[in-house]
Amino acid sequence: MILIDGKKTASDIRQEIAQQVMTMTENGQRPPCLAAILVGHDGGSETYVANKVKACSECGFTSRLIRYEDDITQDQLLETIAELNKDPEVDGFIVQLPLPPHIDEQTIIEAIDPSKDVDGFHPVNVGRMSIGLPCFISATPAGILDLLERYNIDTKGKNCVILGRSNIVGKPMASLMMQKAYPGNATVTVCHSASQNIKEITRRADIIIAAMGRPASVTADMVKDGAVIIDVGTTRVPDASRKSGFRLSGDVDFENVAPKCSFITPVPGGVGPMTITRLMKNTLQAAQLHLNR
Amino acid sequence: MILIDGKKTASDIRQEIAQQVMTMTENGQRPPCLAAILVGHDGGSETYVANKVKACSECGFTSRLIRYEDDITQDQLLETIAELNKDPEVDGFIVQLPLPPHIDEQTIIEAIDPSKDVDGFHPVNVGRMSIGLPCFISATPAGILDLLERYNIDTKGKNCVILGRSNIVGKPMASLMMQKAYPGNATVTVCHSASQNIKEITRRADIIIAAMGRPASVTADMVKDGAVIIDVGTTRVPDASRKSGFRLSGDVDFENVAPKCSFITPVPGGVGPMTITRLMKNTLQAAQLHLNR
Repeated sequence: MILIDGKKTASDIRQEIAQQVMTMTENGQRPPCLAAILVGHDGGSETYVANKVKACSECGFTSRLIRYEDDITQDQLLETIAELNKDPEVDGFIVQLPLPPHIDEQTIIEAIDPSKDVDGFHPVNVGRMSIGLPCFISATPAGILDLLERYNIDTKGKNCVILGRSNIVGKPMASLMMQKAYPGNATVTVCHSASQNIKEITRRADIIIAAMGRPASVTADMVKDGAVIIDVGTTRVPDASRKSGFRLSGDVDFENVAPKCSFITPVPGGVGPMTITRLMKNTLQAAQLHLNR
Repeated sequence: MILIDGKKTASDIRQEIAQQVMTMTENGQRPPCLAAILVGHDGGSETYVANKVKACSECGFTSRLIRYEDDITQDQLLETIAELNKDPEVDGFIVQLPLPPHIDEQTIIEAIDPSKDVDGFHPVNVGRMSIGLPCFISATPAGILDLLERYNIDTKGKNCVILGRSNIVGKPMASLMMQKAYPGNATVTVCHSASQNIKEITRRADIIIAAMGRPASVTADMVKDGAVIIDVGTTRVPDASRKSGFRLSGDVDFENVAPKCSFITPVPGGVGPMTITRLMKNTLQAAQLHLNR
């Protein structure tokens, strides 16, 4: 069993990005710039945005953090987005979700210029990904592709079962794994809350990508020997033994499943660290696009 | 075994559309208007466009046919598209594919205003479909949903196997059949040229949607008793007994497969007639959107 080390892979990729940024600046170009809009003071969002800003500095990017209280109107937010769309110094930007209930998230997402939409949530990027055209692929699915690639995991013609059909993981993952490309070219099955006999289906899987958000629900009897397991779940479960009072649990019963696998991602330290790194890669790509056109 | 009569269903839906158009005009609104751009003289394209214009008249729509020789430049074509985008009398329009090789199809598709893209090929519509938002769904997959619905075919939790991963059928079909909606909510598997043991996979399918373009390649031994078969294939195969010298063949070995099925679409007369009808439905939807805003 090989443990897929997301933390190390993420760190390797960040170093590669920093190297490329150095080359850019040596050639007289400015470094990539990522802006983040943060509305309100949600604890999780604060942490995510802080980590994104930190990752920018690790990669040699400049970054901007634009903060608003949660009474900002939708129109004010749209105005800021319009400014960032026009700003030639900003290569990509994200609006940290969730937003307060009086703001329509889809309207906000669709206001972002697709060429600066480094989160890959704009329908143009989702559609282009499905068609197989160049686009920004959202960070979590793209990070999973990176892991499969870095660990040279064979995907062509393999049975890949995706558990969950969310817009940010399950659906794009299905779209990517069926493309005629590596990593991909797999026979893809998507299971969800209405699926029957899930155990039968997962037992035939060469690759399982679990993204349901149900802690430890993929058990050893659901997995065949030698399977590759990518665990996208990160649910906080109460844990009195921790100072924080909780621990992160994946969707996979790691302890019992891991011994059967050829490859498996741990939680934490698997898919998680790749997500922000992939956002950096998207921002670098956006900068190269903007600076070279 | 119930034969799914696409011709009758298409005719029923066209009558329903005509009824709605009558109500619109009685209320003082103009009828929906579809424009079609046809470049060159490809025989297949000529027929398709003629059928679309005919369907418009059946539904009480007005239509415009804009013809160009195949030496039109990409810029000229883009100019026409820009005019149609602005024209308040045109609700939706299509550019008949294929285009001559000196014109980039994707550039043309992306130039169409998504709110007039009744073919549903613009990445915004593809992306919105994947996310589950209101959009134009391209005609063939949408027509298949109509058939499943009109025949009250149960899809929730069923194993739906899609053969083929084309951008115009396989991929959107997968996207639609996995949505939490009816028809949909199925466990979806997509097979393609790299898939292994396809027979094993199709034998477990409650619903098979065949869209590979390989005549009669779904054979009786690949199908379980009681399966629902939707045959999207329409390949011209030589047939000396016909005046035309060919006949249309589906992807399914109909003669031997049909007796095992609960429902099956014939070729011709199954999915085919639904396609243009669904284009009419999309145009009606576009008109309602434009006239009521």
